[in-house]
Amino acid sequence: MDNFKVNGFKAAAVRSGIRGKDRLDMGLIVCDRPAVAAGVFTTSLVKAAPVLLDTARLADGKARAILVNSGIANACSGAPGMAAAISSSKFVADGLEIGEDDVLIASTGVIGEQLDLACFKKAIPALIEALSTDGLVEVSQAIMTTDTVAKMAVRVVEVAGKPVKLVGMTKGAGMIKPNMATMLAFVMTDVAIEQGCLQQMLQQACDRSFNRITIDGDTSTNDSVIILANGLAGNQPLTENSSEAAPFMAALADLTKDLALQIVRDGEGATKLVTVRVKGARNDQEAKQAAETVAESNLVKTAFFGEDANWGRIIGALGRSGAAFDQQQVDIAFDEVLMVENGLGLGSEVEAAATEVLKQKEFSVNIDLKAGSGSCEYYTCDFSLDYVKINADYRT
Amino acid sequence: MDNFKVNGFKAAAVRSGIRGKDRLDMGLIVCDRPAVAAGVFTTSLVKAAPVLLDTARLADGKARAILVNSGIANACSGAPGMAAAISSSKFVADGLEIGEDDVLIASTGVIGEQLDLACFKKAIPALIEALSTDGLVEVSQAIMTTDTVAKMAVRVVEVAGKPVKLVGMTKGAGMIKPNMATMLAFVMTDVAIEQGCLQQMLQQACDRSFNRITIDGDTSTNDSVIILANGLAGNQPLTENSSEAAPFMAALADLTKDLALQIVRDGEGATKLVTVRVKGARNDQEAKQAAETVAESNLVKTAFFGEDANWGRIIGALGRSGAAFDQQQVDIAFDEVLMVENGLGLGSEVEAAATEVLKQKEFSVNIDLKAGSGSCEYYTCDFSLDYVKINADYRT
Repeated sequence: MDNFKVNGFKAAAVRSGIRGKDRLDMGLIVCDRPAVAAGVFTTSLVKAAPVLLDTARLADGKARAILVNSGIANACSGAPGMAAAISSSKFVADGLEIGEDDVLIASTGVIGEQLDLACFKKAIPALIEALSTDGLVEVSQAIMTTDTVAKMAVRVVEVAGKPVKLVGMTKGAGMIKPNMATMLAFVMTDVAIEQGCLQQMLQQACDRSFNRITIDGDTSTNDSVIILANGLAGNQPLTENSSEAAPFMAALADLTKDLALQIVRDGEGATKLVTVRVKGARNDQEAKQAAETVAESNLVKTAFFGEDANWGRIIGALGRSGAAFDQQQVDIAFDEVLMVENGLGLGSEVEAAATEVLKQKEFSVNIDLKAGSGSCEYYTCDFSLDYVKINADYRT
Repeated sequence: MDNFKVNGFKAAAVRSGIRGKDRLDMGLIVCDRPAVAAGVFTTSLVKAAPVLLDTARLADGKARAILVNSGIANACSGAPGMAAAISSSKFVADGLEIGEDDVLIASTGVIGEQLDLACFKKAIPALIEALSTDGLVEVSQAIMTTDTVAKMAVRVVEVAGKPVKLVGMTKGAGMIKPNMATMLAFVMTDVAIEQGCLQQMLQQACDRSFNRITIDGDTSTNDSVIILANGLAGNQPLTENSSEAAPFMAALADLTKDLALQIVRDGEGATKLVTVRVKGARNDQEAKQAAETVAESNLVKTAFFGEDANWGRIIGALGRSGAAFDQQQVDIAFDEVLMVENGLGLGSEVEAAATEVLKQKEFSVNIDLKAGSGSCEYYTCDFSLDYVKINADYRT
């Protein structure tokens, strides 16, 4: 577990009772010293109480702790929900003797139910008592909902001669689509960095990772990605103009993409991870529209589940995507197997080869629209019987 | 079957072999005399050969016949596909001794495969031989793909003292979403009407029927709604300014809504028909965005399948819809059971009553955003295990 430690960070998780007695459902991450903090949150108009509170508390660009629970999302919970959010963070602030404003919170679970403050009152002293440098792994387990595996990633990068470490965790398996989803992600790092630079890098990393994945096309009220950077690596603090910013940015982007792909692989009912690559769009925006529409099509995703190289559904999705192209120019390949050339299928022999590609657990769909130089890479999963089973029965 | 006859129209269907030997898969509808014709077609950029051909042939606003096949969509079939479309219509024109331009065609089925002209060559003389005033019912069977029932509707309306009859048929069960879907609909009527007026009325009727339904959010390459009006009712031809236009428009709108709801009821795997009503949006456009987003959400639709009154998913969909509202103002009811008032759930007693509503085969979700006077009604179905089964195995 040494791998998932970052200098200056401690964490712990407990069974608070919010999600029943048998599982970890509350976690606390604490930084020994004030950390530079940045966040990216749901674009939904309907925002959960933790999202509203964190957005306000990140105005000063600093934080010391993240308190997180699973089981209840504290969304659509009105004034009582906001009061609960504030009170729970106050228990943490009092216990750690830090400012309330330095405590960020996150919740995930069922929308529309109220949190029981008694659970927090009892759990938080235990969490503080149990804080340890090994604790991040347990927190990654405590944030799981329909996730079947805990999701963590680690990167080490040299910044101006100093080794910098990043440890990330995430959760999410359904209600996943671009613009954040029912997903939480926390990244802890010891890099020294200016807040404006950190915020910009986090947004950029999210745009190419968490905002490029889809499981079911639904966006949640609680999506939050938070990064804490405590500066203990001792590098000259990074700014937007630092020549040393690039390697850290690359490491952060790589880490968030790793976490995002872990979400798709663990998508509710998912059996396959599919990368949809579009090139040759008129511009990057149209490439994104095209890739997103293919990645979100239920018909395409059920065909993936059936291991059916039904390219007609892919071209159907492209046609309604809003991207401009000439249907007589489109090429479509599964991995390296070209199946459609200039809008026409290449026949049954090729189809047999393509079907072999679809039998793999991970493959790519490569689309060339030949209308320009825009490109986009998007990540999706197949749509299985288990997705419906999981979501028809979620609350029962 | 007397009900499904219209003065001046004959029809027939045969087993042409395109879809195997055991089922009706080709139909022909013929009007004794030139009919005023109008059409509304897919908005997809990728349009099937029949859509392109019909659009061109409707430029003169007249037609005599509709030839339709199921099994192969003749989409993404390039120049050979267009040649097949033209040739098949020529067989009909020659056999009936009418102009090629007066023959419209429609296809539905798998995208990307080529039609076998030999099937048409053999079937069309048989179709012409079999034409009868009773034949529309058989055509409605021949156009079925994953449909489990044939779909027809009839209306009789008095226009300026003359009885006018409308008989409609439709098909479609998957790849169904607004802006037309993998759906075909044909309406035969004996009204006398000017072409511009007919086109406008058809567009208006489609906007409130076929363009307000969703099964899986996918739009097809082949969607076509065609109306033929032969004037035999003997009314003074309707124009945009006729005072008699209103009752005909109402009957047409009622007929197309009837057909559209038949599609949703027969949605692939569907077990429930759900009407999503949004009021209180800032304007009708935002009401439509809100209703459509709820109606298309996989999470909402799987909850319907599970008979779970999970309003959190509904408010989640509203939040990402793009419609503006205050989350502390939203009301949500299932039929008459108010479950959310001013953004807050009304508790477990109400939930039990709402669950009873969801156990019905048909119910409504009534949403008040309290932000203005915009409203929209949208029709959807639940999302079941069978949808995935049907679409994972469609071609195998």
